[in-house]
Amino acid sequence: MTSNAPENPSEAPAVEAARPEARSPRGFGDRRGRDLIAERRLVARVSEVYERWGFEPLETGAFEYADALGKFLPDADRPNEGVFALQDDAGSDDPGEWMALRYDLTAPLARFAAQNWETLPKPFRRYAYGPVWRNEKPGPGRFREFWQCDADTVGSDRPEADAEIIAMGCEGLKAAGLSDGQAVIRVSNRKLFDGLFEAGEVTDPVQKLTALRAIDKFDRLGWEGVSALLGEGRLDDSGDYTKGAKLPTGVTSAIKAFLASAGDETLTRADTLNAVAAVGGLGHAGEAALSELAAIDAALNAMKVGQASVRFDPTIVRGLEYYTGSVFEAELLLDTKDDKGRPLRFGSIGGGGRYDDLVARFTGQSTPATGFSFGVSRLASALKAAGREDASVRGPVVVIVFSQDDMQHYLDAVSELRNGGVAAEVYLGRAGMKAQMKYADRRGAPAVVILGGDELAAGTATVKDLDAGRALAAGVSDNEAWKAARPGQVNVPRGTLLQTIRSIIDGPSINAA
Amino acid sequence: MTSNAPENPSEAPAVEAARPEARSPRGFGDRRGRDLIAERRLVARVSEVYERWGFEPLETGAFEYADALGKFLPDADRPNEGVFALQDDAGSDDPGEWMALRYDLTAPLARFAAQNWETLPKPFRRYAYGPVWRNEKPGPGRFREFWQCDADTVGSDRPEADAEIIAMGCEGLKAAGLSDGQAVIRVSNRKLFDGLFEAGEVTDPVQKLTALRAIDKFDRLGWEGVSALLGEGRLDDSGDYTKGAKLPTGVTSAIKAFLASAGDETLTRADTLNAVAAVGGLGHAGEAALSELAAIDAALNAMKVGQASVRFDPTIVRGLEYYTGSVFEAELLLDTKDDKGRPLRFGSIGGGGRYDDLVARFTGQSTPATGFSFGVSRLASALKAAGREDASVRGPVVVIVFSQDDMQHYLDAVSELRNGGVAAEVYLGRAGMKAQMKYADRRGAPAVVILGGDELAAGTATVKDLDAGRALAAGVSDNEAWKAARPGQVNVPRGTLLQTIRSIIDGPSINAA
Repeated sequence: MTSNAPENPSEAPAVEAARPEARSPRGFGDRRGRDLIAERRLVARVSEVYERWGFEPLETGAFEYADALGKFLPDADRPNEGVFALQDDAGSDDPGEWMALRYDLTAPLARFAAQNWETLPKPFRRYAYGPVWRNEKPGPGRFREFWQCDADTVGSDRPEADAEIIAMGCEGLKAAGLSDGQAVIRVSNRKLFDGLFEAGEVTDPVQKLTALRAIDKFDRLGWEGVSALLGEGRLDDSGDYTKGAKLPTGVTSAIKAFLASAGDETLTRADTLNAVAAVGGLGHAGEAALSELAAIDAALNAMKVGQASVRFDPTIVRGLEYYTGSVFEAELLLDTKDDKGRPLRFGSIGGGGRYDDLVARFTGQSTPATGFSFGVSRLASALKAAGREDASVRGPVVVIVFSQDDMQHYLDAVSELRNGGVAAEVYLGRAGMKAQMKYADRRGAPAVVILGGDELAAGTATVKDLDAGRALAAGVSDNEAWKAARPGQVNVPRGTLLQTIRSIIDGPSINAA
Repeated sequence: MTSNAPENPSEAPAVEAARPEARSPRGFGDRRGRDLIAERRLVARVSEVYERWGFEPLETGAFEYADALGKFLPDADRPNEGVFALQDDAGSDDPGEWMALRYDLTAPLARFAAQNWETLPKPFRRYAYGPVWRNEKPGPGRFREFWQCDADTVGSDRPEADAEIIAMGCEGLKAAGLSDGQAVIRVSNRKLFDGLFEAGEVTDPVQKLTALRAIDKFDRLGWEGVSALLGEGRLDDSGDYTKGAKLPTGVTSAIKAFLASAGDETLTRADTLNAVAAVGGLGHAGEAALSELAAIDAALNAMKVGQASVRFDPTIVRGLEYYTGSVFEAELLLDTKDDKGRPLRFGSIGGGGRYDDLVARFTGQSTPATGFSFGVSRLASALKAAGREDASVRGPVVVIVFSQDDMQHYLDAVSELRNGGVAAEVYLGRAGMKAQMKYADRRGAPAVVILGGDELAAGTATVKDLDAGRALAAGVSDNEAWKAARPGQVNVPRGTLLQTIRSIIDGPSINAA
């Protein structure tokens, strides 16, 4: 463990025996600096949109009782059923009730809305952000803790509520720095398939679920693979056989027509609705879905949401079980690359839909609700991979330390800079000048301040312009005008220190040269 | 459960049997609106200070392995030892290692610093905020989840690092809205008592702990009670007997002198040091403590930190076991009152100190570190109780809904307002005009927009100024000039809607009248 030794071990270790290893559980990441700042800005910008659209902030606790949280997670094939659960031992009963960390921000909202319905303004519009936890098998890029940023309207059955959530999702994507054509929200309605199944007399829930899962795989398997899964079954390349849904032929051909309309990017939302309507055999529920989608289209048009920003796509099937009507999925269309420059697909970076029964779980009274959730961590990673990271991180100005005796001068200078609104610090380690310069560079300091014996005697300060140094290294120094403006190192009267530093921070930038 | 019924139950409930009760585990609060906004502003302002002082953000995961977290909590007399722990089942071993939710932000920092020491800039200065979890018995005002906001310097043994953390704590309190004299940070050093015990040949850890706990009770028990606890023992009013520390007389009288110097608010920091030095018998460790405190005083003076903002108080003993040198405690001096107007004492709203051995737990190499933590939730509650809450919360402008047929006009108006930077929404429930007005009032809307049949036919909009209505109710309307400026309701050309709303939001305020 000597590799972890500090630069200046000052005394013998206090603890010698049975040292724990410094590591954290898999799937729980540490974030700092640029990445963290970028993610926080993303949350702040999306939150601003939500507030401008009339949504108020809400923050619920990390734990909910397990029965209140419900079991709506897909692929809950792990011991803890996909959540982190433990028994509450704070009550009088022992052992207490099971409680679990929230796996999303919707289930806690449903609990909160049911608990406080009487006193809430109705419809209740709230946004929320924060970590959610899923006890899934961690892996590369798969976290067990990640951030979401949601907005929901509880207590409105109007399709305009869905339209507003969708349009706001578009605004959120714009606020995140994505322009038209770089992301799309695809919209459908669960009742379309309810209607198809109803009309085709498909009633077995397992059969329905198998069919929906097959449709969800269209982009990977194409029609050949999906049709096999809708029929008898499919043998994949690895030799595994998946039993099919065995749908009636009429239902399968309707689904084929759905998939065809979804694939055609030239269709407007109205065109897609016409194409789906032309398939026919949609049953009662399917007709309701069409009329809801038509109302959503009208509202999107009134809000001037373009055809390329929001598309209707009847193949959209969201994983979570609680959706009852419209469903949305946001997809990134930007070219993204991994660390090694290889193309990377992020797919869904958010989604949502209408869940009219989630509050009814508690109250017994149907309370219509609809919402959208951004996968913040995923969106931030995607933007980073696309080179769209927005995090102009500036480190603090570093005041170099020469002598303990002159510490008051260093502290005085740093106080002055901070009071002037400049991020600054005195170097507080015990290393020499060279290491201090390296430290300042590592921190991304724009400048260092030198108050050596000569400077203190003369009432001056020496300021090293590290940005100029970086520009020199980057070859910008060929520009004579820039060189004149940024001489790299200056000795100035102590009284003009703040002003000198300001001119470096606000001055001609490296990129502008 | 009919009391939880929505205003417009639209259909029969989907789930009828075995409904879970809508409630959350005790000690996990829901926050929204004004309180949440105030707390978030507090975190943002304190974070700004930390960044200006050269600290970078870090966010670690909620879970740490239990052995990495360590056992430093006081009063760990509950089953889970004060934390929420469970066995990780994501590994290959079954059942897996114990992991627990972080109980503070310092232990995860120590783990992070040990894990990444080689690649970090040294000293490593980071700030962090977020929830921490303690599995304690919940009660009124006692939460099992609460927010902290910390700043720490890892890798500096300089007293100036402590001084900086203390001075920054003062700046944080100012940023939170507290002016000079409304809060104080009291500072001491653990080695003072180490030295006293060493000089008095007190070696039994139980004896030491009993003595420190007795000293911690000085503000409640006074010298009579404390001296009993330092000696043979004490019988309290309820008849319970607490065994004393049985300290030698010399040590007890030194402690008495400490407590006397702590009580004198006229002493400067230097005076207090002199008073403590005059007590004598401080041993080797005590002399080291005095010289560290003297260096901290010099640095505080260089940073122009006033005597009233930071006091030396040799009776400060922090609860967490990991402190090794200087210790700090921030106390609110504002008069605070509870909901019923009764005086309320908040006491400590933050604290910290030097913990040179916490990273060494992992690496075996002593890595000096010091830090400060604000109890954000507590500070926010205290500011609220003191009437210092800063949360000018404005609701959205509400566009009234009359007819589904005119929905596109409402949506068009609301889009225009939002694009103009005004928070706005269309009412999306199904209630009538009166309920919509009540809704707008509940949301704190500055205005409502009426686009009825007459307005649409005439190309106008009617704007109701709800702020004017509130002012009327508050009696401000006696002021004729104000009444002329804020007529309460206007009918304007549709093209001037945004401008009209802006003049209400930015116009003469109710308070200014």
